[in-house]
Amino acid sequence: MVGKSYQLLPLYDYSMKLTSIYLCLSLCLFTGQLALCQVIEWKEIYPGIWKGAVGKPEAYNLFSASGATVMEAGLQRLGKTVFPLLESEIKVKLINGKTYLRFPLDQKEQLYGFGLNFQSVHQRGKILRLHVDHYGGMDNGRTHAPTPFYVSSKGYGVFINSARYLDVYAGSAARKDSENPPIAKDRNTDKSWTARPYSDAVEILVPAEGVELYLFGGPKPLDAVRRFNLFNGGGVLPPRWGLGFTQRVQRLYNAQQVEEEIDAFEAKGYPLDYVGLEPGWQSKSYPCTFEWDKERFPKPQEFVQKLLKKGIRLNLWTNPYVSPESPIFNDIIPYTGSHTVWVGLVPDLNMPQARDILFSQFKKDQVAIGISGYKIDEVDGGDQYLWPDVATFPSGVTGEQMRQTYGLLVQRYSAEMYRQLNKRTYGLVRGSNAGGVSFPYVIYNDYYKHEDFITALINSGFAGVLWTPEVRASKSGEEWLRRFQSNIVSPMAMINAWASGTKPWSFPEVEKQVKETALLRMRMMPYWYSEFAKYHFEGTPPFRAMNLEEGFSVAAEEDVEIADLEKNPYVEAVSKEVKDQYMAGENLLVAPMFTGQVSRTVILPKGNWYDFYTGKYVGNGEVIAVRPDLDHIPVYVKDGGIIPLMPPLLHAPKANEKVAIEVRHYGKKTGLYQLYDDDGETFNYEKGQYSFRTIKIERDKKGVLRGSITPPEKGKPNTIAEVHFRFMSE
Amino acid sequence: MVGKSYQLLPLYDYSMKLTSIYLCLSLCLFTGQLALCQVIEWKEIYPGIWKGAVGKPEAYNLFSASGATVMEAGLQRLGKTVFPLLESEIKVKLINGKTYLRFPLDQKEQLYGFGLNFQSVHQRGKILRLHVDHYGGMDNGRTHAPTPFYVSSKGYGVFINSARYLDVYAGSAARKDSENPPIAKDRNTDKSWTARPYSDAVEILVPAEGVELYLFGGPKPLDAVRRFNLFNGGGVLPPRWGLGFTQRVQRLYNAQQVEEEIDAFEAKGYPLDYVGLEPGWQSKSYPCTFEWDKERFPKPQEFVQKLLKKGIRLNLWTNPYVSPESPIFNDIIPYTGSHTVWVGLVPDLNMPQARDILFSQFKKDQVAIGISGYKIDEVDGGDQYLWPDVATFPSGVTGEQMRQTYGLLVQRYSAEMYRQLNKRTYGLVRGSNAGGVSFPYVIYNDYYKHEDFITALINSGFAGVLWTPEVRASKSGEEWLRRFQSNIVSPMAMINAWASGTKPWSFPEVEKQVKETALLRMRMMPYWYSEFAKYHFEGTPPFRAMNLEEGFSVAAEEDVEIADLEKNPYVEAVSKEVKDQYMAGENLLVAPMFTGQVSRTVILPKGNWYDFYTGKYVGNGEVIAVRPDLDHIPVYVKDGGIIPLMPPLLHAPKANEKVAIEVRHYGKKTGLYQLYDDDGETFNYEKGQYSFRTIKIERDKKGVLRGSITPPEKGKPNTIAEVHFRFMSE
Repeated sequence: MVGKSYQLLPLYDYSMKLTSIYLCLSLCLFTGQLALCQVIEWKEIYPGIWKGAVGKPEAYNLFSASGATVMEAGLQRLGKTVFPLLESEIKVKLINGKTYLRFPLDQKEQLYGFGLNFQSVHQRGKILRLHVDHYGGMDNGRTHAPTPFYVSSKGYGVFINSARYLDVYAGSAARKDSENPPIAKDRNTDKSWTARPYSDAVEILVPAEGVELYLFGGPKPLDAVRRFNLFNGGGVLPPRWGLGFTQRVQRLYNAQQVEEEIDAFEAKGYPLDYVGLEPGWQSKSYPCTFEWDKERFPKPQEFVQKLLKKGIRLNLWTNPYVSPESPIFNDIIPYTGSHTVWVGLVPDLNMPQARDILFSQFKKDQVAIGISGYKIDEVDGGDQYLWPDVATFPSGVTGEQMRQTYGLLVQRYSAEMYRQLNKRTYGLVRGSNAGGVSFPYVIYNDYYKHEDFITALINSGFAGVLWTPEVRASKSGEEWLRRFQSNIVSPMAMINAWASGTKPWSFPEVEKQVKETALLRMRMMPYWYSEFAKYHFEGTPPFRAMNLEEGFSVAAEEDVEIADLEKNPYVEAVSKEVKDQYMAGENLLVAPMFTGQVSRTVILPKGNWYDFYTGKYVGNGEVIAVRPDLDHIPVYVKDGGIIPLMPPLLHAPKANEKVAIEVRHYGKKTGLYQLYDDDGETFNYEKGQYSFRTIKIERDKKGVLRGSITPPEKGKPNTIAEVHFRFMSE
Repeated sequence: MVGKSYQLLPLYDYSMKLTSIYLCLSLCLFTGQLALCQVIEWKEIYPGIWKGAVGKPEAYNLFSASGATVMEAGLQRLGKTVFPLLESEIKVKLINGKTYLRFPLDQKEQLYGFGLNFQSVHQRGKILRLHVDHYGGMDNGRTHAPTPFYVSSKGYGVFINSARYLDVYAGSAARKDSENPPIAKDRNTDKSWTARPYSDAVEILVPAEGVELYLFGGPKPLDAVRRFNLFNGGGVLPPRWGLGFTQRVQRLYNAQQVEEEIDAFEAKGYPLDYVGLEPGWQSKSYPCTFEWDKERFPKPQEFVQKLLKKGIRLNLWTNPYVSPESPIFNDIIPYTGSHTVWVGLVPDLNMPQARDILFSQFKKDQVAIGISGYKIDEVDGGDQYLWPDVATFPSGVTGEQMRQTYGLLVQRYSAEMYRQLNKRTYGLVRGSNAGGVSFPYVIYNDYYKHEDFITALINSGFAGVLWTPEVRASKSGEEWLRRFQSNIVSPMAMINAWASGTKPWSFPEVEKQVKETALLRMRMMPYWYSEFAKYHFEGTPPFRAMNLEEGFSVAAEEDVEIADLEKNPYVEAVSKEVKDQYMAGENLLVAPMFTGQVSRTVILPKGNWYDFYTGKYVGNGEVIAVRPDLDHIPVYVKDGGIIPLMPPLLHAPKANEKVAIEVRHYGKKTGLYQLYDDDGETFNYEKGQYSFRTIKIERDKKGVLRGSITPPEKGKPNTIAEVHFRFMSE
């Protein structure tokens, strides 16, 4: 095919049905077919973000469903950058009521994103159908958050703002009009033949007569991710307690049993900030009544308030499907979908009436008495456990659109209840999508493969969502501990062991390490809280891929040939897919250990790296082999990295409670860190009631490291009692 | 929800985009939403077949792509029946350019069909996306022939004539307007709670603004299947040699090596009718040149003719993707799709130019020198190995439609080459669909799970396709033999062991049984040939589910309660999914043995049944436990059943060659059998050059069984030399 010329056909258009012609369309010919090829007019709507409309975009999309408010200040701070692609290389066609998109790919470009994938970080070559679903063991686009956003290693991002199922060919489909077509080879005898020839484009099929596109500039991939997150509202800032420890209790526990479990945590010295009640708190579940079971919880308000006094908050499981036994059933009927889920009505959350009826019940019965948040289950699928695509909804939103956005809608409107009270919440949800970046929810599922949970944590940073590699059950103390150790380096440190009944202390042989690990989570709260603040104000995902880390690339060696790769293990390593280590906040590199592993390799980006526990130098731009003991998983800090800690409290500090800070400095370099502070529980930070205090570690004239922190800002919350400096590598 | 009344909403129609209004539409309200509800005008187009058009059906559909000619005479013979459903219970809506279909389901109804499924026979409760693909290990609608046709145990069939991906909810989605809604239960404490509540409808989403529907009447499920098959052209009648034995040889064998392998079969006394050449016959493959490799096959015509003289035909592997090295490359460019497959062009077979160029090459280079057929590979997917849905084609057919029909198109137009020569062919193909019933192709794949191959054989009878449980490789002699034994009771007795290099005689410990099994296939040729003739003229699938067999049902016991089921193993057995035994032709029940099995149960329909090998009585309407030895798998014959055999020839009889017939009669009853006869190789049977000769076995006045056969019809082919009768159960 290479070097052959193509002859155009007389037009065959007998099956073309061009229903509408919209903005700036022009007729063009390609491969002999008549179609509407469109020139996109890109408009820079924020610095480094360009919007393009194709055809007639649908009014209902991910951005409108989420109601996200752009974090404009953060975008302004990120500043201008160049349009990242050649406009002429972005091709769009409208055919038969569908939109065909094509974006260019370079030979050496890698792609990340396309939602919360569990087994792969490199997405180039994939074929995906982006579809909200319970993750089914294959990275095929069906996942809890199939965010239609991808990031290129070349430093840009692309977002398709559609609430439809999108078919994505991420560099998998070769075209005859390609300018860089693959070479045909003979499979009979040529050993270099490949089943997957090279493709120079991402192609996406949008089943609608138009769509909104967004391009996010770099220059680095992380910049594109930041812009995407800020555009979608900025990352969530959880309350401080949300970053503490959480346990979920057996589904049919009554009030007394819940208290006993909480008391056991306290007595044994394990931290605990919030406790989750499973379906049994409701009088009936699957479908749900949304009211307390009077036998198991005869006096909910007393119970909730008693726990709050102990420093324990309650999170309630629910799904949104309305039982005939629910007090809201009759009222909500007209505002629900055509189909039922577990015989429960599906509220059409695009209708204010449905929201009023549903959330009034939540507010009156639960939020008003002090419930701190929800675990919203079953809004993802699988197909058997949700409405079908043939379902209709009174708002006119289709079954497909509702499937793609229901996770967004339940997050948006449940979070609103807390915002109205000026109280932050932090909970769990099974489904999300683009637009959900700012929602106070963490995604979880039932898949439970530890290795893949870590890969999901990595991919969450590309998908604009948070993910918890929760701990449910284990076959051994080793597994229990290993899962625990990576669980505390995640957005939600959760034991969700209600079904197995496992307690943190259930494996005596690792009880000491488990407790130490849990307390380490608490000690690191100032670091996590500051890193989430940066997620919120700057868009930097607190947990993210190595590929977003400076110094982790082959940029300088781009022209290294394969032969050289084999001679240079570092260059080879960073070219490969890395899905078992990740960045946690600005300064930490985490390398989890999995059951049965006694050693592993860790790829260190360029720059000096130091052991988190000891401060010792471990390497620089190289692959190291490590044999950690059972007590710890490898965690490394970059040169000059600062980690602020607090004492190992059993509960997060209360609003405005002051705590002492230990500032740890690693390595030899000058260190700078922005320590975030606010009241920890309200939305007053949105009105300026917050501060970033600058910690600086530098050498004095004698070459001795000295630390300083800027004073608290007047009139702003100040929760820092005192600051100690500790130089880990001196 | 039960018993509650629904209040209608003020209309919310902000997102409704109703682009067109077609035939007999009326506005109606449902669940508060404005939509176009349609009354279907059903028209009886043939006896027992009703057609209904919804909206504006697309011109390009499965029936038009296949070009099938209705077998009207067969339909007339089947005669009239009643419209099988209540018209008012079939609901159709047009919303946002899509068609929503709903068909009713009774409480006890079971569903079969929806294409070539591999793991399930009962389809009720399934959610499927009908999509041509390589079978991936799950019955989710992605398969080689995702025929949009289902059959109800109540005795009717439904066919959606669409070349789109259809989303099917086969009794899985419950609605709030259901007249028989499921009862809400409390999962907290009610043990009878189920995750999958009862649904009283099949719902199907057709992504097009209309569709053609067909209803096939009963009264029995088999009648609906017959009508579907006859409507789609009637089943294929293979040439006699097609029902013989076939072996495929190592992909890079040259002419001499092929001959050596053929000679080995002859020398060892194994039957062989046609040999398959794999990609190495072509000068280049993947993509393909469609011309002989001059080194491996320097004189193709001589070679082909020499083999024909030995009674061996050749079948050639190919895929349809055109290599830049192919002589037709330049000419076909304008008539190919936008995307390439393995860098090969994809001919748009809806364009006469593409067909002329492609098939002229086949005719000139291969068919004209005596090649007897093709194995057409890679027309099914998986997604990585086919054009993407964003592909466009010069005929205007979309990537999706082309995917759903490409298997039909390659079968249709390649078969046409042989029809033009008045020669029958019989080959292999990877993809098909409704409309392909009459095509001389058998589906195969790489999945290779023996148990599931049998389930696929069962489902092929609902899907209007043929399927071969081919034998490729085995880990043991036992496995080799067990696969062989079911392979010979299928549409194509094939050893496709070119990759493993296994020969029929490779396992000495079972060599004797393998040869005997192969020869049994040959002996049974008169039976297979007659049964395929019935497929052709009467629509009865030669291989089919027990559920289509008379006497295999709980009809009489329909009101039996679960408690009673447990007391009655037979009633229980026929209520369960049966996927490891099947009917082969009119009279045989086959129960394959799988590796490692030493015993199994067989469910015998009502009526007396007899052992095929011995003629002994085995049971009646009951579940029997059997322990067959390695020599045979259980095969049973119904009372009065007749099986015509011929001598164990190594090659099928040539055109008009006469053979002796042994008529076996089983059981005690009078036997009647229609023995089909024609020349065996041409299409002259379509001009009446065939006969069904009636064999009758009945008792004379002394009570002794006597056999007779009607004389040959004058002027018709007669290949029966003499007839012997053998009464197996006397």
